[in-house]
Amino acid sequence: MADAQNRVKRYLYTTIFGTDTPHGKAFDIALIVLILASMVVLMLESIASFHAKWSNWLYWIEWGFTGIFTIEYILRLYCSPRPSAYARSFYGVVDLLAILPTYIAIFVPGTTYLMVVRLLRVLRIFRVLRLMRFLEDSNILLRSMMLSSRKVMIFFFSVAILVTVFGALMYVIEGPENGFTSIPYAIYWAIVTLTTVGYGDIVPQTDVGKALASFTMLMGYSIIAVPTGIITAEIGQQMSLHRNLVKCPNCSKSGHESDASFCKHCGSELPEADKRVVTPGL
Amino acid sequence: MADAQNRVKRYLYTTIFGTDTPHGKAFDIALIVLILASMVVLMLESIASFHAKWSNWLYWIEWGFTGIFTIEYILRLYCSPRPSAYARSFYGVVDLLAILPTYIAIFVPGTTYLMVVRLLRVLRIFRVLRLMRFLEDSNILLRSMMLSSRKVMIFFFSVAILVTVFGALMYVIEGPENGFTSIPYAIYWAIVTLTTVGYGDIVPQTDVGKALASFTMLMGYSIIAVPTGIITAEIGQQMSLHRNLVKCPNCSKSGHESDASFCKHCGSELPEADKRVVTPGL
Amino acid sequence: MADAQNRVKRYLYTTIFGTDTPHGKAFDIALIVLILASMVVLMLESIASFHAKWSNWLYWIEWGFTGIFTIEYILRLYCSPRPSAYARSFYGVVDLLAILPTYIAIFVPGTTYLMVVRLLRVLRIFRVLRLMRFLEDSNILLRSMMLSSRKVMIFFFSVAILVTVFGALMYVIEGPENGFTSIPYAIYWAIVTLTTVGYGDIVPQTDVGKALASFTMLMGYSIIAVPTGIITAEIGQQMSLHRNLVKCPNCSKSGHESDASFCKHCGSELPEADKRVVTPGL
Amino acid sequence: MADAQNRVKRYLYTTIFGTDTPHGKAFDIALIVLILASMVVLMLESIASFHAKWSNWLYWIEWGFTGIFTIEYILRLYCSPRPSAYARSFYGVVDLLAILPTYIAIFVPGTTYLMVVRLLRVLRIFRVLRLMRFLEDSNILLRSMMLSSRKVMIFFFSVAILVTVFGALMYVIEGPENGFTSIPYAIYWAIVTLTTVGYGDIVPQTDVGKALASFTMLMGYSIIAVPTGIITAEIGQQMSLHRNLVKCPNCSKSGHESDASFCKHCGSELPEADKRVVTPGL
Repeated sequence: MADAQNRVKRYLYTTIFGTDTPHGKAFDIALIVLILASMVVLMLESIASFHAKWSNWLYWIEWGFTGIFTIEYILRLYCSPRPSAYARSFYGVVDLLAILPTYIAIFVPGTTYLMVVRLLRVLRIFRVLRLMRFLEDSNILLRSMMLSSRKVMIFFFSVAILVTVFGALMYVIEGPENGFTSIPYAIYWAIVTLTTVGYGDIVPQTDVGKALASFTMLMGYSIIAVPTGIITAEIGQQMSLHRNLVKCPNCSKSGHESDASFCKHCGSELPEADKRVVTPGL
Repeated sequence: MADAQNRVKRYLYTTIFGTDTPHGKAFDIALIVLILASMVVLMLESIASFHAKWSNWLYWIEWGFTGIFTIEYILRLYCSPRPSAYARSFYGVVDLLAILPTYIAIFVPGTTYLMVVRLLRVLRIFRVLRLMRFLEDSNILLRSMMLSSRKVMIFFFSVAILVTVFGALMYVIEGPENGFTSIPYAIYWAIVTLTTVGYGDIVPQTDVGKALASFTMLMGYSIIAVPTGIITAEIGQQMSLHRNLVKCPNCSKSGHESDASFCKHCGSELPEADKRVVTPGL
Repeated sequence: MADAQNRVKRYLYTTIFGTDTPHGKAFDIALIVLILASMVVLMLESIASFHAKWSNWLYWIEWGFTGIFTIEYILRLYCSPRPSAYARSFYGVVDLLAILPTYIAIFVPGTTYLMVVRLLRVLRIFRVLRLMRFLEDSNILLRSMMLSSRKVMIFFFSVAILVTVFGALMYVIEGPENGFTSIPYAIYWAIVTLTTVGYGDIVPQTDVGKALASFTMLMGYSIIAVPTGIITAEIGQQMSLHRNLVKCPNCSKSGHESDASFCKHCGSELPEADKRVVTPGL
Repeated sequence: MADAQNRVKRYLYTTIFGTDTPHGKAFDIALIVLILASMVVLMLESIASFHAKWSNWLYWIEWGFTGIFTIEYILRLYCSPRPSAYARSFYGVVDLLAILPTYIAIFVPGTTYLMVVRLLRVLRIFRVLRLMRFLEDSNILLRSMMLSSRKVMIFFFSVAILVTVFGALMYVIEGPENGFTSIPYAIYWAIVTLTTVGYGDIVPQTDVGKALASFTMLMGYSIIAVPTGIITAEIGQQMSLHRNLVKCPNCSKSGHESDASFCKHCGSELPEADKRVVTPGL
């Protein structure tokens, strides 16, 4: 009896948490479709004209999704070898937060703010990304960004100071009468300008202000180059690292292109493509 | 008789489909001029003041173009060795779609929507690009983009999630009273902001909204670096691959790195650095 | 007596100017917190509604900060081995400018312009950056920017000419009746457009103007690539320089390329590839 | 007599056309100052309030500049060994165009359009750039741009087609009632959007239009990466070419860093920095 229960548990575990079995794959795909569908319903709900017309339907559909996700959450708790570990894990919390708002809304009506919590469901999509063959590439991207994160932080620190100085200068030059009502608001203007977004909701009115704005824009123009440079250099190196890891078994020098059949350093034959010693690196 | 017909057919084929003979080249250049002229007429037609004045002339010019392109289409069908294969090919369908709208407009008047179909003619220009010497360069660009397409897709997937989360947050913060009437509309705002387009048709009104918008812009600022980095790294590698065209005197394969002493394809020794046959490449 | 005074002086010096002792570190961190707090107060002060409500509090808090920074300034003068050198140094001037405005405001009321001088305090943050481990990375960034500064200047020189030409053309095409009231203002438009900021406060109204604007934008689109290219190439080289930290066992200088067999500094043989001392670097 | 005249001619030639003699340098610097001053006067003239007040002064100053530049032009014609060659050269034409408008304005009053011709004077600045040490760097930039110009042209060709298709689609979707009055105007919108300028003077009003606009922006976001990638890769290669041209006199392998004292391939001493065989390349 306990054995049968254990077998059910293990089957559920490999299906719900795993992605290797056909059932596990099917479960993950079904889950992705459900999550995306619940996102679409959430968006439709936010459109006033749509909500007015289909309010009843949306109500029941929302409860349907909540029911399914609740069952999924309970099953995950049930089949997990350590339920409390799952419940406290990042995805465990997201799974719980994704169903709670609907229940809370029974007691506390009109809580549109809880709506946004349901949006966190979208993060669950990352869980099923493993299905796809995108992992290798996204690893290169992630590693590049992680390796350059310290440089990017220094850059943002400098931008923060720049934006504060430009914003404050602009506040003094233009003043509240020209729309720059406070320093934080002037900093908002500086960010809008330096990032080349340029809404146009506050623009300099005085000639000095326009000159400073021009200078800010040209600064932003060359500053935009810095994070691009950092990340490009990192991605370039990650990619060339990934390419040049074939080692020659004779002279043990590496750096061979993937289409090489002979060592370019000593001329001895390289092993066949699937037998090469490639340090995976990433 | 059949032989003469065959000779005409073959002549037409090499002229219309080919680009190697002088007549074939002249045909392609005439076609490009006609296509561009028909595009210009289409654009002029869409200008109300112009259309009011020259409506009659435009009508006959349009019919002139349609006549010429119809004859071209029939000739292509006639001289093609396998007419049905041409008719179902991409360019065959485009060629047909380019002439159909004018005929349909006789029976169904006022169909401005069909106008856009005629625009597809512009795609035919790609057919004659072979004329120019641009092919090699555009191959490098295309290969770079194809090789990096998977990375760019991962990037767009992340941007889609980011934009959804920022849009939904903004919808909750600002709400319909400040112009963010629905989540999809707020996502439109997030895209306008993250891509640094910044129309200014919807802007945050509250202080919290402005702070979040600033954060979104700075995110976009560093995120813009990622696709640039991906494509730059790829183009850089494609270009250096094409530059190092050291040719092996034994197997006459090229693509050796400049520090190679032995051919990576056949293992024979490469000539010394200053005696190498280097095709200058680009 | 003088000896005790000297010991106090030296203790103060290592604490206030140094960052190596625990007290020195604590002093720097406390200073950073104070500077940031004074910045926040300055910003709050600029918000009209906030200022109206808390005017009294802000007044005393401002005096509190001024008092603390005044004491700090006097202590720095006192413990510095050469007070006049400190007073004339960059940070000495900033430190003085950071406290002066509050005192001047007693005699000259309503001087919001002095407010911005207090913002210079933010520059003091750079002094304590030494605390963090960011230095190595920021050195790479700084060196890259310094090395490419001449290229970036050429670039800005060309942009300045471009912007003048486009602005003047636009002034002639659109004229004062369409908002382009003078050449400098038209140049401001050209900068807003070329940097892709696009406020939308002045936009071309005529058809010719719109065509020229389109051309300007497409120019800006490809021109934005130039500073990015310059800085990216520089950062890439700086980073690969820093990565290849193969150390020579003889002269213990590093910076050898990975394909080097002999030390480029002293000429002695380098150990084989797998026995090299490689400082992992970044 | 003729000899004295020849000596004067040669002296004028080396002073006016040359930059090597102290007098030649002084002449070029004085010319740059005059050109910039005449530009500033031209800009001030375009400001209505300024023009109204100082109209008289500006008139005489303008004549002063025209007088000086006329004398300069005559002197250049006089001392040039082949006056007609100079007159027909690019700078000869610019020099003439820079003085003509003021004379024409006597007979044809109110010719603001001639103003812009005077702006061409700014091009003369390039002539004196030789003075500065910027040449080497600007050569790298220029060569990179020239080498990548074909790729950039392909890119612009693709952008032109993209912008036409998006503009026409938008014209059909939004129509004249939402501000997209004609296809050329819709193409202008597409350019404003794709280049991320985003004036906001025409924005999509319908939901379908907004969706298409979002798609256009995301396209522009990844497309902006392409010219950056092309130019970055080119600059990177130009720069590394420039760096790695030190040749070892013993093993005649190149690729040494500029700080190397010994050949990294054979260990023999490299010649001193100023005696190295460096193929200048660029």
